[in-house]
Amino acid sequence: MSGLHDFAERGGLGAVMNALGAQARAAAAAVREASAETRTAALRAIAVRLREAAPAILAANADDVRDGRAAGLSEAFVDRLALDAKRVEAIAAAVEETGEIPDPVGAVMASWTRPNGLRFSRVRTPIGVIGVIFESRPNVAADAGALALRAGNAVILRGGSDSTRSVREIGRALQLGLKDAGLPVEAIQIVPTADRDAVGHMLAGLAGAIDVIVPRGGKSLVARVQDEARVPVFAHLEGLCHVYVHAGADPAKAVAIALNGKMRRVSVCGATETLLIDRAVAKTLLPPIADALRAAGCELRGDEEARSITPMTPATEEDWRTEYLAPILSIRVVGGIDDAIAHIARYGTSHTEAIVTEDAAAADAFTNRVDSAIVLVNASTQFADGGEFGFGGEIGIATGRLHARGPVGAEQLTTFKYVVRGEGQIRP
Amino acid sequence: MSGLHDFAERGGLGAVMNALGAQARAAAAAVREASAETRTAALRAIAVRLREAAPAILAANADDVRDGRAAGLSEAFVDRLALDAKRVEAIAAAVEETGEIPDPVGAVMASWTRPNGLRFSRVRTPIGVIGVIFESRPNVAADAGALALRAGNAVILRGGSDSTRSVREIGRALQLGLKDAGLPVEAIQIVPTADRDAVGHMLAGLAGAIDVIVPRGGKSLVARVQDEARVPVFAHLEGLCHVYVHAGADPAKAVAIALNGKMRRVSVCGATETLLIDRAVAKTLLPPIADALRAAGCELRGDEEARSITPMTPATEEDWRTEYLAPILSIRVVGGIDDAIAHIARYGTSHTEAIVTEDAAAADAFTNRVDSAIVLVNASTQFADGGEFGFGGEIGIATGRLHARGPVGAEQLTTFKYVVRGEGQIRP
Repeated sequence: MSGLHDFAERGGLGAVMNALGAQARAAAAAVREASAETRTAALRAIAVRLREAAPAILAANADDVRDGRAAGLSEAFVDRLALDAKRVEAIAAAVEETGEIPDPVGAVMASWTRPNGLRFSRVRTPIGVIGVIFESRPNVAADAGALALRAGNAVILRGGSDSTRSVREIGRALQLGLKDAGLPVEAIQIVPTADRDAVGHMLAGLAGAIDVIVPRGGKSLVARVQDEARVPVFAHLEGLCHVYVHAGADPAKAVAIALNGKMRRVSVCGATETLLIDRAVAKTLLPPIADALRAAGCELRGDEEARSITPMTPATEEDWRTEYLAPILSIRVVGGIDDAIAHIARYGTSHTEAIVTEDAAAADAFTNRVDSAIVLVNASTQFADGGEFGFGGEIGIATGRLHARGPVGAEQLTTFKYVVRGEGQIRP
Repeated sequence: MSGLHDFAERGGLGAVMNALGAQARAAAAAVREASAETRTAALRAIAVRLREAAPAILAANADDVRDGRAAGLSEAFVDRLALDAKRVEAIAAAVEETGEIPDPVGAVMASWTRPNGLRFSRVRTPIGVIGVIFESRPNVAADAGALALRAGNAVILRGGSDSTRSVREIGRALQLGLKDAGLPVEAIQIVPTADRDAVGHMLAGLAGAIDVIVPRGGKSLVARVQDEARVPVFAHLEGLCHVYVHAGADPAKAVAIALNGKMRRVSVCGATETLLIDRAVAKTLLPPIADALRAAGCELRGDEEARSITPMTPATEEDWRTEYLAPILSIRVVGGIDDAIAHIARYGTSHTEAIVTEDAAAADAFTNRVDSAIVLVNASTQFADGGEFGFGGEIGIATGRLHARGPVGAEQLTTFKYVVRGEGQIRP
């Protein structure tokens, strides 16, 4: 690995990065052609190697944390960065669980026969090479690496500068596990340099080696990736999620869903940021909802009508556009489902929206017309998560419109090809 | 429409193009929320209006052809540009057939229930706004417009400068049909200016209004689009398709498939460009294949071994990389399936490859390991076509890896969302 640091000799950072890409591309073919059992064995072996490496990982992490504190990182930042024995065990366990996800490669998605006798199948195949650019949390290296491998891909991982040593140790364990199973170690590569320009090279696609980029981190990272990437990206910039309490809502469900949606965890992308409530039920339903939220420590900001029902800070236009990622909820009283849908279309980020109603027609109208990745009826927006969907894990949530939308699990890290079987047919 | 030409007043080309985009985005919501019956009615009405407009379309086309000839266009180019009564009828008939494709919007792609009782569905929804940039053939305006509409999208069409008047008349008929069915006319818009910079604006995405771009035309157009587009693209740059005659090939099938693959139509992307043949059968099978191709007027270029079996011009490295789009076939003798797969991986464009063999294990190995959009066993590469797949039509063929791969029909012009139904579940 040390030779890769010899930039001057080897033609600079671009050459080093493109070499990573070429190695990944070559390894991707081997991973794709390996059996499902081999990929599963590799994931199990990786979990074993991670547990073995726990002392080394923790020692490296202690260095990262010490240096991070010295550099003035906030405690919140350090908490995202820090590992302990329990967290390392959780990382290994997560890789093990990923090994239990059914292998998606080779699955027949659809099949049909044409009048001329040709038999068509659409068959799952890995996307190829995934590029993951992440910040802070060292576990992403293992989580994302494992999920990419489960779907038959090779992966190039680039972590934040604050967790370089932690990620390097995790990367060693990942590669030992690959080797144990007879897969090329270049199937999972950690970018070996802290040079900030390495990210720019990845965004350019490493001379055609990267098929898709997944950013995991704060808004400025995601925005940079979406802006500069010359290859497809699976990402969401913001999760400005709504709960719409319709006139036909069950009162208890409305309270529970609003409270859980906002307060279960305020900093996840599936946290509810705005509550919309039908005028017809606002006087009766808003007070108990507001009481429950206030009791849980949530600050409420409302339009004039909401404020006339129960006291709260005034909400501005800016509030409708704000993903707080904090215990703050904006509240608007609306004149019915058309208003609610229009508000969501105008201010939402196509992430996750929920309607609370017992009225089947209203539920159908909402789910048909709301154009977000996830639309729920009578359930919390906090279910926006690959594990909750039954995917066994996710590499992130996407709000783009193509290929992957919503939680990106192993299946979404595949593409497909057509296999056509004939008996000698030629086309007239 | 004339006001849109007033660039100086309206803030320039960028403002005009972004306005087109905003109109398309607004119309897309209406098209998406309309019923399948309404979209079908619109397609039928468009076919009626196209037939009505035949005299006007032909008159406009005559002007385009006259000016094209005067400008020195080749006869081949003029032939792509020219319409007659039969071709106009074919355009209308194709739109009618598109109306008979089952509407994909709202189809449930998958559904499942979680232990907590939440019921999940993955539901088809239109992509949104499609941008089509095409050259020469005026029919693309109607074909692509109709297919986009069938899948619930709005579409912005930009044709070549040589067919401006033909495309404008076709566009009028498309919009009249939309109006007849009660859909907004901005669901299908023709870019109203011949300004070459309009394409650049589309490639930038029209301020977020375009979700995907489909280029239809020559290699330099496709390359420009793939290079410059800041939004996803469904395209193929080249179709360098292979036929591999395996040692277990049926001789008659090998001849028929090689001949049809090359010579049915030499300028389509699914035309065979290179023949690979196992050494074990080259002496017996290559002569009849070569004879059939030569009799059909095909020039053969082969490696040393091929030439030692039957006379032909020498093939160079360049020939393996060349999509001839002409009656020329390069031929290479290989040492078995691994060699064939390696050659395809090295020189192919991930478009379409065929193996001719009666050996089931070889067929399976080929279809598993070859990483192209379409892989056939015992059938001609010329089947690389949406109609032949049963899609009812295609907007193009894609060789990228994400979202759409192979023929892009109505279903591929959709994306999906998740609908999650509960009874008040909150997440622990």
